[in-house]
Amino acid sequence: MHRVNVGLAGFGTVGSGTYGVSTRNAELIAQRAGVELAVTRVVCRNVEAARSAVGPEVQISEDWHDIVNDPTIGIAVELMGGIEPARSYVMACIEAGKHVVTANKALLAAHGNEIFAAAQAKGVHVGFEASVAGGIPIIKVLRQGLVANRIEWLAGIINGTCNFILSKMRDEGVAFDETLALAQKLGYAEADPTFDIEGYDAAHKLTILASLAFGVPIDTSATYVEGITKLDSVDIVWAEELGYRLKLLGIARRTDAGIETRVHPTLVPSSALLANVEGVMNAVVVNGDALGTSLYYGRGAGSDPTASAVVADLTEVAQRMTCGCVDNPNFSNTQTARLPMAETVSQYYIRLVLDNADVIDAIKARFAAAGVNLQAVHQRPADDASVAVVVMTDTARECDVQAVLKAIADKAHVAAVLRREDFS
Amino acid sequence: MHRVNVGLAGFGTVGSGTYGVSTRNAELIAQRAGVELAVTRVVCRNVEAARSAVGPEVQISEDWHDIVNDPTIGIAVELMGGIEPARSYVMACIEAGKHVVTANKALLAAHGNEIFAAAQAKGVHVGFEASVAGGIPIIKVLRQGLVANRIEWLAGIINGTCNFILSKMRDEGVAFDETLALAQKLGYAEADPTFDIEGYDAAHKLTILASLAFGVPIDTSATYVEGITKLDSVDIVWAEELGYRLKLLGIARRTDAGIETRVHPTLVPSSALLANVEGVMNAVVVNGDALGTSLYYGRGAGSDPTASAVVADLTEVAQRMTCGCVDNPNFSNTQTARLPMAETVSQYYIRLVLDNADVIDAIKARFAAAGVNLQAVHQRPADDASVAVVVMTDTARECDVQAVLKAIADKAHVAAVLRREDFS
Repeated sequence: MHRVNVGLAGFGTVGSGTYGVSTRNAELIAQRAGVELAVTRVVCRNVEAARSAVGPEVQISEDWHDIVNDPTIGIAVELMGGIEPARSYVMACIEAGKHVVTANKALLAAHGNEIFAAAQAKGVHVGFEASVAGGIPIIKVLRQGLVANRIEWLAGIINGTCNFILSKMRDEGVAFDETLALAQKLGYAEADPTFDIEGYDAAHKLTILASLAFGVPIDTSATYVEGITKLDSVDIVWAEELGYRLKLLGIARRTDAGIETRVHPTLVPSSALLANVEGVMNAVVVNGDALGTSLYYGRGAGSDPTASAVVADLTEVAQRMTCGCVDNPNFSNTQTARLPMAETVSQYYIRLVLDNADVIDAIKARFAAAGVNLQAVHQRPADDASVAVVVMTDTARECDVQAVLKAIADKAHVAAVLRREDFS
Repeated sequence: MHRVNVGLAGFGTVGSGTYGVSTRNAELIAQRAGVELAVTRVVCRNVEAARSAVGPEVQISEDWHDIVNDPTIGIAVELMGGIEPARSYVMACIEAGKHVVTANKALLAAHGNEIFAAAQAKGVHVGFEASVAGGIPIIKVLRQGLVANRIEWLAGIINGTCNFILSKMRDEGVAFDETLALAQKLGYAEADPTFDIEGYDAAHKLTILASLAFGVPIDTSATYVEGITKLDSVDIVWAEELGYRLKLLGIARRTDAGIETRVHPTLVPSSALLANVEGVMNAVVVNGDALGTSLYYGRGAGSDPTASAVVADLTEVAQRMTCGCVDNPNFSNTQTARLPMAETVSQYYIRLVLDNADVIDAIKARFAAAGVNLQAVHQRPADDASVAVVVMTDTARECDVQAVLKAIADKAHVAAVLRREDFS
């Protein structure tokens, strides 16, 4: 049986999981795939800790060049995270003719085009299943399972930290700050959680998914990003009463005027499967012209779930090595225009706080004048003397809605603007 | 670019969909996969109808030998359905050195072992993504996406006809017969619906999934099958009140004593994603030791959704042809024992009709004596003078439950026995 030696750079949660899964299920993997994977070298900062976790046949050191310079290694895994030295390591491995498997979405979001171009030129494969949605095989689904489909749109819960916080806020009626503290205590949020809660992590992943779905170069700067830090529990309660749940979604859509990519809190109908994805779980909904809507759900982070994706990549690359078959994504689609956020359309939930109810008619008139139709206007007394109003719009353009909000600024405090989308 | 000629046997719903999808998205598929697919020959019964649907470059005839004998065809698609002549055609194509793609679960359930063995011996590939759950790429997920996982269990809504009927019965409180008639009118059920509603179709699909998940030969006879024809709307209402929805599930599980495979109506907690899969939609939940629980949802039937899977297979096989890389499933696992249905465990919902409530204690005593613990006993007056009781058991062995039901036959009419399972 064909045996492939693997070098592992990074031996934290995912690195040790990758070693563990590939070792304990080695026989099963070999039986299924007809190839044998052997981790022969680990590079990490804490050599002692790695030594106690792996077998004596594995060489361990601190310098990633040791993997690059080991001619017996066929596939180099990058699980260091961050941009440097991850980028230098990956490029050096490609240059040395090694296939690469990475879980690093930040790296791909920043340097993916360069990395894939180098790999293609060198005839090596870059596997990145673990970079989006952890163990859910969404990369394989988009690249192979749905290869026959023109993708119309996709929408995903692709940040477990945010989904955990939003689930808790709803379940227990707790405010954002308190829930974030709980998430940190449970290890679901980092000490500095900015990257997750401001939506950047989801934006990186969305960028990768959109590039695959639409065949365009990776371009993170084109994505609109709005996190969950400014959310008020009040809106979660209102949403619930109106039949919606609040989720941080990454949304990518093909329109005639260009591809739109955006990350923001979104109201999803409570009956939709996506609304029922709770806690740290991830899910991606994809709509293709042949298949229609399909959904992929599972663990988006964690040691073994992410390792499941890394080892799936290792297995596929090892199989491809036996027959010299390289297959990297093709981002050569000529229709690469991006739709500006101002041009996107959605249905809106707008919560206004008014000094008194008398101005409601004037506000409605402003919406009408801008061509923004309203589905409903819900009114109730707020805590103090003021009046709270929730306006539910029909489908409207972002720029038209923003223009109305500006125009009514003298009459109303705009407390929340949320988009409503139906991905069922 | 590598171009592969495709022969299509069968030009009904899925056949015409396959031609349509592969033609209209040809450029996209070529860009993504680096191969060009060309349907050059169609074999079907109604040559006239096919002639008006395909381009003039496609040759059309009635005899499947025309595909077998055409040396320019690299991949032969089988969409005729049924066992013969589908089996003869597939075997002849393999013998002629052609790769095969089929959507025929009945054929694979009956002759899959023989077909895969012949393909492996001949060095050709048999793609069968479309045979289970239509356009959901569940075969690829099990074979490749989850290749690193020891699969613990899987459970699926894999018959859209049954799921449509059960969804309607619940939504509208309509009886089985009436709902079946509606399903037939809408084209969701065949004129002779036996195959679907008695669970055989789901059993065929489950058998294929179980073989992939556990690496064992296909063995339909080992599957317990119970359809939905005997279901009473009363139990759907009771289940709803108790927090469950009724779904026809195919369930496969690895146990130390053997693999269990069973198809039967199952009560699923209402909050589970699987419970919220409605209408003709399909979904499969898979639990693996690394990934944990993941779910795959989409259209399980229909022209374009099934074509999505057929064309995905065509693309993969065409790619593999360029590098001579064959990869058929391996059913050589030595742990092939099957767990008899009597030895399976579940939680049970048992509805009894009693002449009077006095016997309830005696019935409880019978359960206790057999070691079947009860979680709850719900009692309410039935329509007539009798008393309806729903017994919710703790986890219990099928044979123990059946023994109790036999022992209480003199005291109670057993109106319904349903299994409760939690696949979240």
